Parts: sequence; C-alpha cells; structure tokens
Amino acid sequence: MRAALADRANSVSSDERRTLLALIQVKAFVFDVFGTVVDWRGGVAREAAPFLQRHGAADARPEAFADAWRSRYVPAMRKVIGGERPFVRLDVLHRENLVAMLPEFGIDPNEIAAEELDELNLAWHRLDPWPDSISGLQRLKARHIIAPLSNGNVRLMVDMAKRAGLPWDAILGAEIAQIYKPDPQAYLRTADVLMLKPEEVCLVAAHNDDLAAARKCGLRTAFVARPYERGPAQTVDLKAESDWDVIANDMNELADAVGA
Amino acid sequence: MRAALADRANSVSSDERRTLLALIQVKAFVFDVFGTVVDWRGGVAREAAPFLQRHGAADARPEAFADAWRSRYVPAMRKVIGGERPFVRLDVLHRENLVAMLPEFGIDPNEIAAEELDELNLAWHRLDPWPDSISGLQRLKARHIIAPLSNGNVRLMVDMAKRAGLPWDAILGAEIAQIYKPDPQAYLRTADVLMLKPEEVCLVAAHNDDLAAARKCGLRTAFVARPYERGPAQTVDLKAESDWDVIANDMNELADAVGA
Repeated sequence: MRAALADRANSVSSDERRTLLALIQVKAFVFDVFGTVVDWRGGVAREAAPFLQRHGAADARPEAFADAWRSRYVPAMRKVIGGERPFVRLDVLHRENLVAMLPEFGIDPNEIAAEELDELNLAWHRLDPWPDSISGLQRLKARHIIAPLSNGNVRLMVDMAKRAGLPWDAILGAEIAQIYKPDPQAYLRTADVLMLKPEEVCLVAAHNDDLAAARKCGLRTAFVARPYERGPAQTVDLKAESDWDVIANDMNELADAVGA
Repeated sequence: MRAALADRANSVSSDERRTLLALIQVKAFVFDVFGTVVDWRGGVAREAAPFLQRHGAADARPEAFADAWRSRYVPAMRKVIGGERPFVRLDVLHRENLVAMLPEFGIDPNEIAAEELDELNLAWHRLDPWPDSISGLQRLKARHIIAPLSNGNVRLMVDMAKRAGLPWDAILGAEIAQIYKPDPQAYLRTADVLMLKPEEVCLVAAHNDDLAAARKCGLRTAFVARPYERGPAQTVDLKAESDWDVIANDMNELADAVGA
C-alpha cells in the first residue's frame, strides 16, 4: 500500500496529495460496527417479529420496534459518559432499554420470563454484515490491523464476528477503554492499546458525529455511506458532512481508496 | 462437541465421566502463549544471533541470550503483581530487562542506538507457533471462543497472530485485565469480559503453575506438554503434575480430547 499511495500522491492535486500522504501513516483501521459494518435494524427486526407475535403485538412493525430500542441507546450511554453511573457493558444497557420500551408496544415486561428477554437481548449479537463488509475487511486486514472500535461489549462483538465471519485482529472498543464513544478517551485509549499515535489510526464509520469526535483526537477518518441503516426514510448521515480523509460508498471502495 | 462428549461420558469410568461432563460446559478456551502456543526460545535466539554478531559477542550462544532474557520475566512481573509498581505492558518490561541483561554478554547498552534495542525487543512479536498450534486452534475455534490469556500485551499478540496466522477470536490477557498472571484477577477478569462463569472457561497451558492458579479461580484446565520449550535440557513442566481436566501432547490431541 505505501508504495502505491506514494506513487499516486505524486500525480494528484495538493489537497488529495496531503490526504494520501496522511493515509500512508495509517497502521490500523478501527470500525464503528452498528450500522457501519452490520445492519442492526434488519437484524433486530428479524428477531423481534416472532417475539411481537407471541406477545399479542403482531400488528406492530418489527422495524419500529428496532428503531424504538435503538433510540434509547444514546441517552443511556450519555449517563455513563457524564458520570451519572459507572461503566456497564452495552448488553446491560440494551437489557434495561428493552424493559423500558416494551410498554410502548403494549407489552408488560413483568409478564415475560427473564430468560426470554435475555434471549431477545442477544439479537444484537446476531446481526448480519452489509454485503460488502467481509470482503472489504479481508482486503484491509492484509496490511493493516483491523478491529472494532464499537460501543458494543467484547462478548457481543465476539459472538457477532464468529457468526458472521468478521475477520477482526482484535476486539477493541468501549469495554476495553471502559468508556463509551464519543468520549475522547474511547478513541485515545484504543490507539494506546495498539501502541500507535492517533494519526496512525483511522476510524471507519457511517456516522459524521463519530468521525468528528475521532478527528478531534487526531485520528484519521473514513466515511462509509450507509444510507439505509435507518430504513428507506433515513434523513441523517446520508452523506459525508466534512472533508473526511476517505469518503466511500462501501468497504470495498474504502479498500480501493487506501490501496488495500 | 456436546453430544459427542455426552455419549462418551456414558461409556467410561466415573472419574473420566466427571471430567467429560465438566468439559461439556466449556464455552471458551483461553491460552497461555509463550511456550504453549509459540516457541519463544527459538524465535528470540533467531533474532539475537545477528545482534550478538554485530556487537562483538559472536561467541555467545543465542539460546543462552534468550534464556537470560526470559529469566528476568517472572521477577519483573512480580513487582507489578506485588504492587511495587503500577501495571505496565510486557513490552516495557522486556525492554527494561534487555538493557539490564546486555552486560552479562559483555555489551554496553549505552553504546547501542535506542532504535536497535527497540527493534530487538520486537523479537517477542515475531515468534513462530509450534507445528501443531494453528491446526489445533482452528479446530477448537469451530465451536468455542478462543483467545490468548497471555501476559503479553495486546499489540504484541496482534503482531504475532498476524505474522503467524493464529486465528484468535479476541485478544485478552494481562493488558485487558490490567494485572499479570498468576494474580487471580487475571483469570477472573478474563472470564468476566467473556461473560462466562469460571467453569465455562478452560485455560490451556504448558506450565503447571499457571494451571494451578487458574484452577484455584474455578477455571477448567488443559495441559499441553512442551518438553522442548526450554531446549533439550529442560527439567521443568515435562509432564502434568496434577489431574488437569485434559492432558495432551499437542493442540490436536487437545482438540481430539474435547471432540473438536
């Protein structure tokens, strides 16, 4: 990659040249996972559908259930980032959020066995990758370290990777850093564990706010567009909102862009 | 694995039956790495040889250099375990130990560029697996989580795995636990990150003392004999010194024993 990128840097505009030279330094790509690597909405809806049927909510749209569950994710993490509560892994937040949102669908969580809720909570461990994710990751892995920098906990990421065949070199992220993104320490501790300078690490994400937080910490940034992450009516993160170091339509375009 | 083990449990002695039923519970195999999965002595000696030649110590045996370096490993970790100093990653201890032992070989560390010592320190990142390690790990990975539970730091383990093709599902161990083995927390925090009970985790090691510490924490134990880890004159850990749950001569025998 380094020689190829350096060659290209000699034949392009000065802006592009600066970007290519920056990418030459990158030794690790770390990834947002929910939405960027895997389809959380489709995966959660798939497991929610029989659950809703069993509990008298067959009229509810499983995608709406996924959206409602996901909508409680950021507020729950903010309490940890803000110090209102100590770090707990995402499985714990997901489980609490599930209980809290079931009444929105006319379901009383107290009437459901804990084991059944535990099992539904594992839907987040069984999400499918977007069609380009595995081939793109395999290409990037050849000459770079690849690891999740997700708010998902280690076991969640391990279960997901084993089921889907995601070829991570390591499982990093919030549980290893003991703090959730977008807290700066989530990015900086990840670089530190990899014994890399921030500019040697590139965050790959479909979310402009995640990339903005990573850039503030000195990381390189790659936007991969996922315009259907939130379904056909998605209104946010449809495109790159800043001059991220790489802007790509999928993981293979990212691999192309960095010469992997 | 579970059905096969349960079948075998019906046709064996009561001791063996208890062991097989215990192994049915195991969901993750975690591994000692230096000596158990990879050949540290041969790998360090290979990189020490040209270094010794360059610095006027061509008469020294590279294997003796590896042994001398390794002999400072346990005392250095004990200072961290005992609270004499805060946790630092193994790369830091290896680097300090290297400087401390060079005079034993008639080499003044102050006369060598820091970059050259840094590079030699990375010999520990480039160790080769024993011939059976990769095939055994691949078999075990099919139905279990596999991860290092090594005192080596994350980046060391990642570099080693990428170079050698070790198919870990995650990189766990001392740096994730922020404490070195044999401190009980090294084992217990590893089980906790995996969201498993201690008895659902099996430590694989060529060292009886490591297995004894893991067993005290409630982990299952598998001894894999590595009688040449310390060279042809090895006197310790030649065989299992307790009734570990599995006793095997290599990783494939371990995979056989657990029906993987």
